[in-house]
Amino acid sequence: MTRINKAACIGGGVIGGGWIARFLLAGIDVDVFDPHPEATRIVGEVLANAQKAYAMLTGAPLPPRGKLTFRDTLEAAVGDADWIQESVPERLDLKRKVLTQIDAVAKPDALIGSSTSGLLPTDLQRDMRHPERLFVAHPYNPVYLLPLVEIVGGEKTSMETIKAAMERLPPIGMKGVHIAKEIEAFVGDRLLEALWREALWLIKDDICTVETLDDVIRYSFGLRWAQMGLFQTYRIAGGEAGMRHFLAQFGPALKWNWTKLMDVVDLDDALVEKIGQQSDEQAAGLSIRELERIRDENLVGILQTLKRSHGGEGWGAGKLLKDFEQGLWAATDGGEKLDVAQPLRLIDTKVSPAWVDYNGHMTEHRYLQVFGDTSDALLRVIGVDLAYVERGHSYYTVETHIRHLGEAKLGQAIHSTAQILGSDEKRLHVFHTIYDTANDEAIATAEQMLLHVDAKAGKAAPAPEEVLSKIRPIAEAHTKLPVPEGVGRHVGQKR
Amino acid sequence: MTRINKAACIGGGVIGGGWIARFLLAGIDVDVFDPHPEATRIVGEVLANAQKAYAMLTGAPLPPRGKLTFRDTLEAAVGDADWIQESVPERLDLKRKVLTQIDAVAKPDALIGSSTSGLLPTDLQRDMRHPERLFVAHPYNPVYLLPLVEIVGGEKTSMETIKAAMERLPPIGMKGVHIAKEIEAFVGDRLLEALWREALWLIKDDICTVETLDDVIRYSFGLRWAQMGLFQTYRIAGGEAGMRHFLAQFGPALKWNWTKLMDVVDLDDALVEKIGQQSDEQAAGLSIRELERIRDENLVGILQTLKRSHGGEGWGAGKLLKDFEQGLWAATDGGEKLDVAQPLRLIDTKVSPAWVDYNGHMTEHRYLQVFGDTSDALLRVIGVDLAYVERGHSYYTVETHIRHLGEAKLGQAIHSTAQILGSDEKRLHVFHTIYDTANDEAIATAEQMLLHVDAKAGKAAPAPEEVLSKIRPIAEAHTKLPVPEGVGRHVGQKR
Repeated sequence: MTRINKAACIGGGVIGGGWIARFLLAGIDVDVFDPHPEATRIVGEVLANAQKAYAMLTGAPLPPRGKLTFRDTLEAAVGDADWIQESVPERLDLKRKVLTQIDAVAKPDALIGSSTSGLLPTDLQRDMRHPERLFVAHPYNPVYLLPLVEIVGGEKTSMETIKAAMERLPPIGMKGVHIAKEIEAFVGDRLLEALWREALWLIKDDICTVETLDDVIRYSFGLRWAQMGLFQTYRIAGGEAGMRHFLAQFGPALKWNWTKLMDVVDLDDALVEKIGQQSDEQAAGLSIRELERIRDENLVGILQTLKRSHGGEGWGAGKLLKDFEQGLWAATDGGEKLDVAQPLRLIDTKVSPAWVDYNGHMTEHRYLQVFGDTSDALLRVIGVDLAYVERGHSYYTVETHIRHLGEAKLGQAIHSTAQILGSDEKRLHVFHTIYDTANDEAIATAEQMLLHVDAKAGKAAPAPEEVLSKIRPIAEAHTKLPVPEGVGRHVGQKR
Repeated sequence: MTRINKAACIGGGVIGGGWIARFLLAGIDVDVFDPHPEATRIVGEVLANAQKAYAMLTGAPLPPRGKLTFRDTLEAAVGDADWIQESVPERLDLKRKVLTQIDAVAKPDALIGSSTSGLLPTDLQRDMRHPERLFVAHPYNPVYLLPLVEIVGGEKTSMETIKAAMERLPPIGMKGVHIAKEIEAFVGDRLLEALWREALWLIKDDICTVETLDDVIRYSFGLRWAQMGLFQTYRIAGGEAGMRHFLAQFGPALKWNWTKLMDVVDLDDALVEKIGQQSDEQAAGLSIRELERIRDENLVGILQTLKRSHGGEGWGAGKLLKDFEQGLWAATDGGEKLDVAQPLRLIDTKVSPAWVDYNGHMTEHRYLQVFGDTSDALLRVIGVDLAYVERGHSYYTVETHIRHLGEAKLGQAIHSTAQILGSDEKRLHVFHTIYDTANDEAIATAEQMLLHVDAKAGKAAPAPEEVLSKIRPIAEAHTKLPVPEGVGRHVGQKR
């Protein structure tokens, strides 16, 4: 994977802001140019949403946030960036002018992406001196959570540019799809446009309200499309006979004169007002901010679900998230910066909406999830990572004692530490604590005994010297720490 | 809520089978008529998938499965059913004939639903003697997991029928939406048809492959549509200025001549073969059965995510699931059937795909989830249910000791028991065991101390007599049981 070192964003609205958040949270410095008086506020709000979402999305170690700098001129922002993303309003003349300005000052090997949702790259690159490096990189809102980027080249775009752009997206958690031929609106917006036109007719003709129409989507095919698209879903619908059988069955319906697609609806004042009113009713008093928050929480949950799918391999956007996290883990150095004279601080996270009960308190088993993540992090520090486990050995937990000393609530920042109490060839005896990060008060503790096992043989086996040699310096340093209160307790023991 | 007492299904293909599974798993007896020689096999397969999915979907107590009976004649199947669902092939002459036959023998107040995905109810009811009770009830595949049912009346359908049909869906976990005016294909298939036509053009014109098109959907708007539909999503896109602003911005694009919707694609042999080949490549060797399993696992996970959304209130299809589960809990009697002379068997479940690591083993914290569910079930037995908690008191876990004795794997049937070790006014000392249901071997145990608390005051408080009086007989019976091995252990203690 090839990483972007420095990014420039020209235009910082909702889409530009989403790109900025993507880059910053992947550890990439971003220079921004946007003459809009509110650009700083808008970017700040998008970034705040993105940070909240990422804290819930992943327990993987995010790199230090990139540096965000607002510049006074386009030239200053473009500087030495190697990915420049244009997200100015959707007008050909404006975009063409801005892209030509970028082209004039960008360094020779810079990649120049446009966020346009419909204009042709051939038209955008017309006046550029180096048009071969211009491509469309069309994202979806919210850009910091939805991974898709449609990559589209124009007549003068080089294949090297397309290849380079596609390669640079996975390290920022995004999925590039290369659209083979340029057409207006590309693929996603074509599909949306078709459905949108039909939807407007259904509202205009009073077949249903906007709320009913949305319910039709989100209680049926919307649930399917989060994971599989149109064709794969229909492949299943075709049964064992497959896609060709499905087409034979479904094809004839195309000839029926069902839809009103042949007409374009007149979006006059009356229809706008009708949709506006119905949409107000549907929102039932939820503000846009609240809807955004709910949307982001749901997206986080859906992405996490898909990450665990397919026997843990991950599926679709969840597979992408899993790969992104593995990249983040691989980028860490396995504990070089840890201070072994203290219990090791291993997990920093926030209480996710998926973790709380209806009262907003963290559910019991989520404490053990954080403790388990703490053990996993400690194991990585001593060299027991995914590659080690795949070679057939691992540590299994055989016993756990949890004490609840306080409560963690929705959104609360928490962190955990691990102290090694003892170890031998096979056993690793640890004591974890979850703290409220705001005041460093202990919320829960877990004492655990882990056993080194030969997973294939299904029994305990001595850990190899490569692992023991990494445990030793930490265990020795930790013998100098006081034995934590609560060690060796059994349930119900008097304090 | 009004419940269906007895259902009849005429036609038992994939859709009919899905209806059958919905009814049976909601505890409703179903009589089936389908002359197809393979009907029994197809229904059996759909039902098996549905049972697998429900075991993962919910820990709520499903009622005893309804009785499934295949009948030799339509008349025998219709019998005294109060909901008759017709799911025969999509031909007006055939459906009209079958519905008229049903009408002739159904009891007077029976509801008659048709699964048609496009025919008009006015056309279907033409020859019926009691056409007022005929409506379209159009579901989506898989019917046992996707909750949507489009309810559409014809010219002669009574509003009482529509109302009665809508009311009977939530108790079987479904969401009825009333489509105000009948049009061919109703709402969902209109939208799908529009998108499908556009998709076929994109493939035919080599803009992208079916895999790329599916990726465009599932990495972007598909993720949004699982939770919000088209209009609510666009409401957010409009920002604080809302829907009217969005329409003002987006509306003009309708006039652009982007799509090919005005033409109907010719689905000739070459295009069918092209799509068939691309679909084979996309499937990458996964069979339809494997794709179905992955789809169902993902749907379960997405529904569970949405159930926890919006601060635990549930959102969209997840809110519906939550309401469905509350109905199931309300239908239980709080433990009447429990044998208190034994540890109480409280949870029967299967290891869900969301619970396993990439090796297919149940993740550590999911054991505590099952133990927590066991404690919750025990609390309901002693009267500490949601209503009790909402009045301000509850039991909190203060301490837990877990031992791992074996492993639970993906799909494995497991169950748990609870034994009360001791109790006083404030404390409840319990010992839970998770068993492999196949051989009754213990996989893990948990010893827990629960404390009765005043949630508002945030401190321990004596439980009221109404609760203590329910604990007492169980605790007394359990004093006669042997103390389980492992009680009072601390971590690392010699065996």
